[in-house]
Amino acid sequence: MTNHEFYMNLALSNARAMKGQTDPNPLVGSVIVNDNRVVGIGTHLKAGEPHAEIHAIRMAGDRAKGGTIYVTLEPCSHYGRTGPCALAIVEVGINKVVIATLDPNPVVAGNGVKILEDAGIEVIVGIMEEESRQMNEVFNKFIVEQKPFMTMKAGSTLDGKIATHTADSKWITSAEARHDGHVLRNENMAILVGVNTVIEDDPELTTRIPNGRNPIRVILDSTLRIPLDSKIVTDGQAPTWIFTAQEVDQLAKQKLEELGILIFPTSGVKQVNPNDVVRILGEKLISSVLIEGGGSIHAAFLENRLVDKVEIYIAPKLVGGAHAPTFLEGTGVELMRDAVDLADLRITPVGKDFKFTGYPRYTANE
Amino acid sequence: MTNHEFYMNLALSNARAMKGQTDPNPLVGSVIVNDNRVVGIGTHLKAGEPHAEIHAIRMAGDRAKGGTIYVTLEPCSHYGRTGPCALAIVEVGINKVVIATLDPNPVVAGNGVKILEDAGIEVIVGIMEEESRQMNEVFNKFIVEQKPFMTMKAGSTLDGKIATHTADSKWITSAEARHDGHVLRNENMAILVGVNTVIEDDPELTTRIPNGRNPIRVILDSTLRIPLDSKIVTDGQAPTWIFTAQEVDQLAKQKLEELGILIFPTSGVKQVNPNDVVRILGEKLISSVLIEGGGSIHAAFLENRLVDKVEIYIAPKLVGGAHAPTFLEGTGVELMRDAVDLADLRITPVGKDFKFTGYPRYTANE
Repeated sequence: MTNHEFYMNLALSNARAMKGQTDPNPLVGSVIVNDNRVVGIGTHLKAGEPHAEIHAIRMAGDRAKGGTIYVTLEPCSHYGRTGPCALAIVEVGINKVVIATLDPNPVVAGNGVKILEDAGIEVIVGIMEEESRQMNEVFNKFIVEQKPFMTMKAGSTLDGKIATHTADSKWITSAEARHDGHVLRNENMAILVGVNTVIEDDPELTTRIPNGRNPIRVILDSTLRIPLDSKIVTDGQAPTWIFTAQEVDQLAKQKLEELGILIFPTSGVKQVNPNDVVRILGEKLISSVLIEGGGSIHAAFLENRLVDKVEIYIAPKLVGGAHAPTFLEGTGVELMRDAVDLADLRITPVGKDFKFTGYPRYTANE
Repeated sequence: MTNHEFYMNLALSNARAMKGQTDPNPLVGSVIVNDNRVVGIGTHLKAGEPHAEIHAIRMAGDRAKGGTIYVTLEPCSHYGRTGPCALAIVEVGINKVVIATLDPNPVVAGNGVKILEDAGIEVIVGIMEEESRQMNEVFNKFIVEQKPFMTMKAGSTLDGKIATHTADSKWITSAEARHDGHVLRNENMAILVGVNTVIEDDPELTTRIPNGRNPIRVILDSTLRIPLDSKIVTDGQAPTWIFTAQEVDQLAKQKLEELGILIFPTSGVKQVNPNDVVRILGEKLISSVLIEGGGSIHAAFLENRLVDKVEIYIAPKLVGGAHAPTFLEGTGVELMRDAVDLADLRITPVGKDFKFTGYPRYTANE
């Protein structure tokens, strides 16, 4: 690890520790070093409060002058509540700026760097860039595309099954993995399942960890088959939004709306159009969605290239069954070489299970 | 790591390095320590040659007297070409014997220890026992049960598929994983597949690594549907044995036998009985079998509790498909709690894939 990486890593650690409290702003951390000593650290705490660089500059005081500032995201160039951070860096006499990654929005990327370089400050970009980008992967997509970051989650046996041939699924994974799944719910603004999951399991789709925030419950239900006595219709624990195809039962629609459920028609004639779902959720400022299946729903989003990340919990067990459902159904690809590769795959032990985290690369074989 | 573990680990390393050259004998290593110095090391090189302890004693010479001998398997108590090792240890004046594991055959286990203890030598049993047992897992089963150690092998996508819905399967895993699969073929005396694999892929089922030994090719073919021009029937690269049900086409049987294929009927009326397959292979002194599928064959052996170990190569990719085959088909278990747990699960990166190695525990939920 170089010196640059050491200090950037410290800035990343402080940024990551604020996960969940900076929305809708990204996570950002900063460190100021002068004469081989850290003289200031900063992190963005909350939207509307100072950016990370400002906190670090305040802590450094006079010792910011002549120092090097590390910041996990390009200093801003716009006038917000604290003025452009790039200008503040110039004003306190910082000598060198080390940046992990440019502003993800291509329209503004580079403007902060330009202010710094125009003032004669040395700027280095790209130290631990991938770590910084992954830390703000949700923000980075939403700020550019105005569409939510979509995470596909499943708990599976080693042979890919999410239930036995009799549809029994309790429990596939360990208590630790199920807890980890609730942490994912807490981190996402919405959870999405198909109506078959509602009909079969009558789930609550809530976050069952201390101080957990419940995600908005998004149900794909092409023809409004959802039972009116489902927990997600009646329990009031979180908003429930239903996406439908064009042809729906108008009486069912009216009853659901009377119960406070929002109904969003999509352009699909018989089947919900998943592209519309993602677009509409973005318009409603939903920046992150956890897709919790089943296998047909997963396939619909993956086949439309709408999945940004997968989190698959694999239990070290085998159930077998030619008719037992897997976590990815639909038609599937024609040829093995057209399989969707997962990039940056990480395996994390969770209890006695293993979490596979990866990023679909849809264009790998084109 | 204690001193005992340090020296036993050295003995295990020397034992493991002989893999493939001691059959039908087990792998055994030995170390003699005197006055905190290693004074002799030994390993069993080849059936008919001295046991590991004898090599170590010869190297130690006079310095064996008063020393401690480490041996990965209980010293033998029977008169072979070199006399009982337990007696040789007594005769050279060894003070202490540290053993990883007793002889796996319960009929003889403990006899070596008894000779040593009767001579007043201190004996410690159980240092790195699990490592030693796994090293000789094939030998340990065969010597006790006279049945082969059965390893189920598959290459799968992360969603459990072994082909797309169009039956395309080239290639699921990386070149490195496929090479590793050939190492498994080299280590097993027989390879077993279903006739559908032969009909669909016309495989050679040979070991394609330098100096690789081809396993005997065992085909499960209930009614003798195997094409007479299949490579495994015509190429003469290794023996081919076919196991059938009771009702077979007598003309096909005659033609195959004329081509040098051995035909083994089993007690199954319409379907091959996998229990008979394992029993008959044991009678033919086949101590290890690699089951290479497909999914129905895997299920037949797993459902009959005949699989001792699984080696699953998981590729970081997704293919999807409700009708794409998985590596474990059949009926499958009824309830998730009856899933077959895999014990001692290890994950090894192989190229860009991951090898899951584990041991089915059929009785975990009873």
